[in-house]
Amino acid sequence: MKSDIQIAQEAKLLKISEVAKTIGLSEDDYEQYGKYKAKVDPNLLRKLENKEDGKLVLVTAITPTPAGEGKSTVSVGLTQALNRLGKKSIAALREPSLGPVFGIKGGATGGGHSQVIPMEDINLHFTGDIHAIGVAHNLVSACIDNHLKFGNTLNIDITKITWKRVMDMNDRSLRNIVIGLGGTANGIPREDSFQITVASEIMAAMCLADSIADLKEKIGEMVFAYSTAGTPLKIKDLNVQGAVAALMKEAIKPNLVQTLENTPVFIHGGPFANIAHGCNSLLATKLALKLSDFAITEAGFAADLGAEKFLDIKCRKGGLTPNCVVVVATVRALKHHGGAKDLSVQDLDALQKGLSNLEKHIENMKKFNLPVVVAMNRFVTDTESEFDLIRKVCSDHNVPVADCDVWANGGAGGEELAKLVIGEIEKGEDNYTPLYSLESSPEEKIEIIAKEIYGADGVVFSPKAKKTIKTIVENGYGELPICVSKTQKSISDNPALLGRPENFTVTVNEIRLSAGAGFLVAMAGNIIDMPGLPKKPSAELIDIDENGKITGLF
Amino acid sequence: MKSDIQIAQEAKLLKISEVAKTIGLSEDDYEQYGKYKAKVDPNLLRKLENKEDGKLVLVTAITPTPAGEGKSTVSVGLTQALNRLGKKSIAALREPSLGPVFGIKGGATGGGHSQVIPMEDINLHFTGDIHAIGVAHNLVSACIDNHLKFGNTLNIDITKITWKRVMDMNDRSLRNIVIGLGGTANGIPREDSFQITVASEIMAAMCLADSIADLKEKIGEMVFAYSTAGTPLKIKDLNVQGAVAALMKEAIKPNLVQTLENTPVFIHGGPFANIAHGCNSLLATKLALKLSDFAITEAGFAADLGAEKFLDIKCRKGGLTPNCVVVVATVRALKHHGGAKDLSVQDLDALQKGLSNLEKHIENMKKFNLPVVVAMNRFVTDTESEFDLIRKVCSDHNVPVADCDVWANGGAGGEELAKLVIGEIEKGEDNYTPLYSLESSPEEKIEIIAKEIYGADGVVFSPKAKKTIKTIVENGYGELPICVSKTQKSISDNPALLGRPENFTVTVNEIRLSAGAGFLVAMAGNIIDMPGLPKKPSAELIDIDENGKITGLF
Repeated sequence: MKSDIQIAQEAKLLKISEVAKTIGLSEDDYEQYGKYKAKVDPNLLRKLENKEDGKLVLVTAITPTPAGEGKSTVSVGLTQALNRLGKKSIAALREPSLGPVFGIKGGATGGGHSQVIPMEDINLHFTGDIHAIGVAHNLVSACIDNHLKFGNTLNIDITKITWKRVMDMNDRSLRNIVIGLGGTANGIPREDSFQITVASEIMAAMCLADSIADLKEKIGEMVFAYSTAGTPLKIKDLNVQGAVAALMKEAIKPNLVQTLENTPVFIHGGPFANIAHGCNSLLATKLALKLSDFAITEAGFAADLGAEKFLDIKCRKGGLTPNCVVVVATVRALKHHGGAKDLSVQDLDALQKGLSNLEKHIENMKKFNLPVVVAMNRFVTDTESEFDLIRKVCSDHNVPVADCDVWANGGAGGEELAKLVIGEIEKGEDNYTPLYSLESSPEEKIEIIAKEIYGADGVVFSPKAKKTIKTIVENGYGELPICVSKTQKSISDNPALLGRPENFTVTVNEIRLSAGAGFLVAMAGNIIDMPGLPKKPSAELIDIDENGKITGLF
Repeated sequence: MKSDIQIAQEAKLLKISEVAKTIGLSEDDYEQYGKYKAKVDPNLLRKLENKEDGKLVLVTAITPTPAGEGKSTVSVGLTQALNRLGKKSIAALREPSLGPVFGIKGGATGGGHSQVIPMEDINLHFTGDIHAIGVAHNLVSACIDNHLKFGNTLNIDITKITWKRVMDMNDRSLRNIVIGLGGTANGIPREDSFQITVASEIMAAMCLADSIADLKEKIGEMVFAYSTAGTPLKIKDLNVQGAVAALMKEAIKPNLVQTLENTPVFIHGGPFANIAHGCNSLLATKLALKLSDFAITEAGFAADLGAEKFLDIKCRKGGLTPNCVVVVATVRALKHHGGAKDLSVQDLDALQKGLSNLEKHIENMKKFNLPVVVAMNRFVTDTESEFDLIRKVCSDHNVPVADCDVWANGGAGGEELAKLVIGEIEKGEDNYTPLYSLESSPEEKIEIIAKEIYGADGVVFSPKAKKTIKTIVENGYGELPICVSKTQKSISDNPALLGRPENFTVTVNEIRLSAGAGFLVAMAGNIIDMPGLPKKPSAELIDIDENGKITGLF
């Protein structure tokens, strides 16, 4: 069987100028980055102001196994299928971080015959967006410590610096560090920490900004520390928001690439789906909507995390009205939720039990008044009896379900799904409504998410969290939406609770303020924002030959 | 008076495809990065194998003041002038690091009417080369600490890890840090340090590599630590040289841009000129030689550092035969060397004394059997009497001198210099010879450089340095060339000794092995490889407006 990278390297790519032509872009609308990548000028949105938007489809998933359930693959397959059916469709997806590429998870450009290409470029540096974010972020860090060294006129409380440093690498040794050692010429000693770059608030803000001016404004508003008097200190107090935004000049422009079937895809932005909202950039989604009839987008992790944030944060901030939600399910993951140990053999009992997870996600998505379509993402080991069980549950919930074979068959394998999505949208019954009102208190908003989406009995706030909420409200941030940071392994905040957890409470230990990106992060559990490498990292498999051909990427 | 960035932004740029056409490139030979930047495929060198090389001109300088003496500006002005005179000329220059852009020094794309453009892009990220180097370098770092955590089968001596982490930022607080705190889940605690990215050995190696395969080989050979038994441990022992090289896939391709007068320039690679060789990439220089009649290149700091390393390391490794050396001098710097305090008023006494510095650099360059031309880089405050003094000294040394007004007048201001360079080369008397033989011992090689170039009476080696040399020779690295790391403020190793220092000895405290790049670094003085920001960093001046226009860069 061919590997993803082999399939990708055998693909016949169109020049990106030809892809751009198919969606009506003129040469002034984009800049090429090599022959197969382009950055599109977001000002195009102004030009297209009066053009009607296409329909917006969100691809989300059930609670995944560590391997992921193939959201990106289904998103790519679905957009390929829609184009095969004669519809104009563009996918807007997240860009991969380098950390996982060298760690365990591998790249993030779909799989099999539903991939975005050139996959090596997209997985390695791409057009440099994440590097730009890294430098922009670390410029702030350097200026904070420089300010401390030169007299600290802002009275930064050295124990209350919330702005960490970042690196685009899985590097656990940088989670807890002490910096500024070696005497005053080398800075002021203090505890510090590195996050992986995609966890930077600048990434989250870029993905919610509608222009470079808006991004600069957001950067200026970011709170990096508290003063000894307890006042929030913002990046604009350091007077470097202009330089930080200047570093983001190119990064803010959505990247255009193509699928294996030469259909257009925007890949732009990839914030964490726990401490941030986990969706590609608003600009990319908006461009996809203006330039196509069906914009396909995705959100990180399962529907309780990515989709909820997409619907309550991104759509609300961006004025988007999604029209349909696709929930990706795999037989393997459902069996996992039903307690099966060997996921490669038929196990109808486990599957039946595990289907409660899918049911809960379907019910959740309906709470946003959106039609739901289930995509059964097929694996070679799946059996027809297993599929029948899934079909039965979907039918009970009055939700259409598609047999989705996009990994093996590309767009052809997604036509059933595409037809169902078109059908649901054509009914015109979608009526997107966010889950909670922004005017509710932070506690109320968190409780609504926990009860309605996770199925919790309630929320316990730690004293620290309560205190922080009080300060946050006093400082005028009480009406921000909520971004829950919790495990992706369960709908609850406890990774051990599979399927559809019940009779539990969610514990919020800490609240973090993302004042620039514009949300409050409710920390429910100990979320690692700097992954580590496994004993044998994927890096050991990756190679390049004398012709520049890369192997071992997956 | 217009600022550099204003002049640059008013320039009429050619599309890079047009620039590429002027030097005979076909569309398959390069990839566009935006409309005004391109990466050129180094395989072009194979295609042009049988084409004769152009002439190679090195631009170096006298010992500078902190502002620099305008090597890049003169290099750009000279290549513009040669093109004005109907000669085909391409400059091959270094790419700027972001650290200085936000610190004190500003960008590095020339100045006035002799600049390389688009200057904002080149100074901010450019085509991402330095970011690629940063990630490639830090992947090795992460793998080292990962190896320590998972049992340390290589027996890495935790106190003898010579591979630091890197960041492209002036961030003094990262010079001395402790990592791996917080328990075993977060790595093994140890002392560590960040260098600025351009100080990475991967940068040095990229600039001396002739292909991606050669670079991978060099990366594999890099020594990152010593085992508890004292054995040098190489990156290939970690088995990640393939992944590290894969990250360098695009970075190794030279970048094509243009001057204000639309002449072609390669900007590629920018290693430190103290702990590394300080020259742009060999591939860029070789391409410039194949594609033009006169390739103009530069080397960091003054002639005692950059030029010596260019001639003894880069030219030797790359099989280059330079034909002429231009030494840039300014009245201001010469007066500084003569003890003047106010550099903006005429001071013939100080100038006369300071000219000893220029004389020494001229003598030094002649030791490589190369013709020398002096470029008097004009400032508005300079007087005719001051110029006459310089002319006199040059005449005494039988060296032509040009009045060089490229800052104010672009190529037109460099025509006198260009004509002198052409004249010297046409004499055909150049006979490039390296200063020392590689077979000499490390001590002998260092002594030759110190005596012949610096004018020292001798070299004192610390016991530590002596011990390291012994180990290095035993490990088979004795025949590598020498890269002296010392102050750029003096021809000696003492920054206080201006002009032409005499009666001094050079002290070598430490020897570092750059086994992959292929040289031994003799540390003569305490060289900082991670700069800091000043009290008011340039970052506070930089801004971007709603149209993406950048201001405050210089």
